[in-house]
Amino acid sequence: MTRRYDIAIIGAGTAGLSALNQVRKHTDNFVIINAGPYGTTCARTGCMPSKTLVEFANAFHNRHLLETLDVQGAAALQLDSAVLMQKVRDLRDDFAAAAARQTADLGERSIAGRARFVAPQRVQVGERIIEAEASIIATGSRPVVPDAWRALGRRVADSDEFFEWEELPPSLAVVGMGGVGLELAQALSRVGVDVYGFEASNCIGGLSDETVARQALDMLQPEFPIYMGARAELDAQGDRVAVQGSGRQVVVDKALVALGRRPNLEGLGLEQLGVVLDDQGRPRFNPHTMQVGDLPIYLAGDVDGCVPLLHEAADEGYIAAHNALQSGALSFERRTPLMIVFSDPHIAVAGQSLASLKSVEPVIGAADFAAQGRLRMTRSDRGVLRVYAEPGSGRLLGAEMCVPQGEHLAHLLAWAIGERRSVHDVLRMPFYHPVVEEGLRSALRDTRDRLGDSRKAPLELALQHRLPCVPAAGQ
Amino acid sequence: MTRRYDIAIIGAGTAGLSALNQVRKHTDNFVIINAGPYGTTCARTGCMPSKTLVEFANAFHNRHLLETLDVQGAAALQLDSAVLMQKVRDLRDDFAAAAARQTADLGERSIAGRARFVAPQRVQVGERIIEAEASIIATGSRPVVPDAWRALGRRVADSDEFFEWEELPPSLAVVGMGGVGLELAQALSRVGVDVYGFEASNCIGGLSDETVARQALDMLQPEFPIYMGARAELDAQGDRVAVQGSGRQVVVDKALVALGRRPNLEGLGLEQLGVVLDDQGRPRFNPHTMQVGDLPIYLAGDVDGCVPLLHEAADEGYIAAHNALQSGALSFERRTPLMIVFSDPHIAVAGQSLASLKSVEPVIGAADFAAQGRLRMTRSDRGVLRVYAEPGSGRLLGAEMCVPQGEHLAHLLAWAIGERRSVHDVLRMPFYHPVVEEGLRSALRDTRDRLGDSRKAPLELALQHRLPCVPAAGQ
Repeated sequence: MTRRYDIAIIGAGTAGLSALNQVRKHTDNFVIINAGPYGTTCARTGCMPSKTLVEFANAFHNRHLLETLDVQGAAALQLDSAVLMQKVRDLRDDFAAAAARQTADLGERSIAGRARFVAPQRVQVGERIIEAEASIIATGSRPVVPDAWRALGRRVADSDEFFEWEELPPSLAVVGMGGVGLELAQALSRVGVDVYGFEASNCIGGLSDETVARQALDMLQPEFPIYMGARAELDAQGDRVAVQGSGRQVVVDKALVALGRRPNLEGLGLEQLGVVLDDQGRPRFNPHTMQVGDLPIYLAGDVDGCVPLLHEAADEGYIAAHNALQSGALSFERRTPLMIVFSDPHIAVAGQSLASLKSVEPVIGAADFAAQGRLRMTRSDRGVLRVYAEPGSGRLLGAEMCVPQGEHLAHLLAWAIGERRSVHDVLRMPFYHPVVEEGLRSALRDTRDRLGDSRKAPLELALQHRLPCVPAAGQ
Repeated sequence: MTRRYDIAIIGAGTAGLSALNQVRKHTDNFVIINAGPYGTTCARTGCMPSKTLVEFANAFHNRHLLETLDVQGAAALQLDSAVLMQKVRDLRDDFAAAAARQTADLGERSIAGRARFVAPQRVQVGERIIEAEASIIATGSRPVVPDAWRALGRRVADSDEFFEWEELPPSLAVVGMGGVGLELAQALSRVGVDVYGFEASNCIGGLSDETVARQALDMLQPEFPIYMGARAELDAQGDRVAVQGSGRQVVVDKALVALGRRPNLEGLGLEQLGVVLDDQGRPRFNPHTMQVGDLPIYLAGDVDGCVPLLHEAADEGYIAAHNALQSGALSFERRTPLMIVFSDPHIAVAGQSLASLKSVEPVIGAADFAAQGRLRMTRSDRGVLRVYAEPGSGRLLGAEMCVPQGEHLAHLLAWAIGERRSVHDVLRMPFYHPVVEEGLRSALRDTRDRLGDSRKAPLELALQHRLPCVPAAGQ
């Protein structure tokens, strides 16, 4: 059975659905093929259940603020972790169902099955042969777990499997302190699990600025220990698991592995396409066109092995669809980088990370959020924000931070960086009072002061070059 | 006793201290004169204690989220309102002491007393005569309470006196549903006071967009009733107070009057200056130079009767000092307007309010925050945001909103408006997931769609005009 389509989308996750959204505006002659569960990684096992757990855990954690207000009963509050996990799944199921609904009305144009290229414009799904003018590969990714650890059975879970746990274990090792590991480790610690974190590198949460990373560690460690700088080793110990790293060993009930995700490339038949694959089996592609070589094939989302973030995956689906529809290769600007970890304090990188600033030695300004006015009110005044600016011009290049409500400061910074604004420009914007944004202003002022004589004592307000709207009058 | 100074600053509040901060960089020959308590309106009775109370009340209110998680003991939590008020004052005292310290080391250059102009460059304080090259008037403001209501004695308090209450009354009328009244009313309702709100106008919280105001009212009213559209009348009823408005009467233990603030102009001897005073006794001044007529006298802060916001007062102190120091009249651009009320949801106006958009009929896009992903996690998904854009260009002009965490969205919008960005520009910025900023994106997309054919189906990502940094390569 052979059918011809304008577009074949392989994968109904975030990137595939984003592509679908564009494709449907231009043609009805498409097919979307999906292997495995519907509902997107984001909604099923990624952003949504993890942030739901984080929000629930933080709500429970905030009883400590009530204790400082002498609220009667605050110290005795008790959370049932089985109820908690079920409530996380309930909301997660809602989110996943909403994502799954996007392909529910497609009838024969939605195929559940595994797709395999037999030629650049020919895809096989079971017995079916699909001929497509252009294809979009959006098969996503799956968590990395070393094979040897899989042998430990139910003692070990990846971040996808974790959300199916009906109860939380008394003790837990979280291996990998990137964003996912950090969020889950802290949340679980806050709901009463005895958590131990392990990280092979010397940075946590995707930070590259060691000053920020060190302070982040200082803020997080009082809640649960983090053992850094050595690859963890896992061994069965009865029903439990022994985790070793950095010369420390803990024996815990379970280990949660959060070592990142691997693109789902196997079985796609990419070797049939006549393009060079790298040592991880990835075809070469252009991240601005999403095109694979000069084929009518486009990548989108986690499968490309770049930034596994929802908003990037959605953009890639958009770009891939745009180019697939016209069998073209329009080159799009990618958005200003933005990465947020929903730990407390939030960890974020806006614009360029310190490590990625290779061509310039940036001027660095910083702010300490201890004693920050607004945050004092909720006893959450702590954190560090470092801003990187171009010497001379003061143009904002990037920032790294570990700050309460940092998600919002990171958006402000990423937007200013995206618009190529300077420290001086941004200092002319309004900062309300009392808000956490005033801490960002402190970092910007510090950066300005460190820029030195390039602009002598710049005014924080702009001089007016046009006539005032309200000339010389009381209001 | 006569002494000559370069600069005399009258008032040691936010504006006066901001001016002081600039003046000290350029001369030691200054004097700062203050009548009444030190420590700034913001720290003593304004922003800081009110936001502290709001944060405390919200922390207690959030027990309802714990109830939805079946947390044992959440429903039985009890708050002692006397303890609450004392904790608010404790933190308030810290903030006020920090402000007061800024004049503590000035010795004879700081004078406690009431200043009165006898001539443009001559100020009398008690027996002292101060000759100043230039003066800055920063005497602040005080709450407005009708004289007849003052006769009701301790039954009635203004928003300054309120913070001295040792206990909270069982029932309370809050007269005036501007920002201050709304914040206090909701916070007090959340800690168990039976609150009734009264507002003479048809808008609340400084909103001018009736669509937003109506929805704000719908969200707030389930917590406490608000009687709109008629001036309230207060009468003693035994030890209690009867409050009447909009055909409703309530008899409550106390009334909190939040009808705004009046500039402290009396006794300053402004009639000695030979400038025209308006019917409220305010001298004409230029809001871009802060200069009064062409005198060596500058206004700063609440005393000018414009926008009684800390960040504006600080700017005015800066401008006034800058011009006073050189006896000049440099004209400064004022920051993009930004107003935030820390109710829940936050109320905010960024850039121009709908009412202030007189010369253009804006294109209006909106977003409803019901079912907003991130907010669903804390069961706080509700709210409305309306964006005003220039027809044709899509340039952002303003926005009004009632949205959880709206303070942050308001900053993003105010900055984009300040930089004269269009809806299209802003849609090219990164929006992370899952964040409340995605709700802002919905409003921007709606605005873009309503802009019509002026730009046909604009791409949400920009086309790339320069060569890609990573040309045609896997990463």
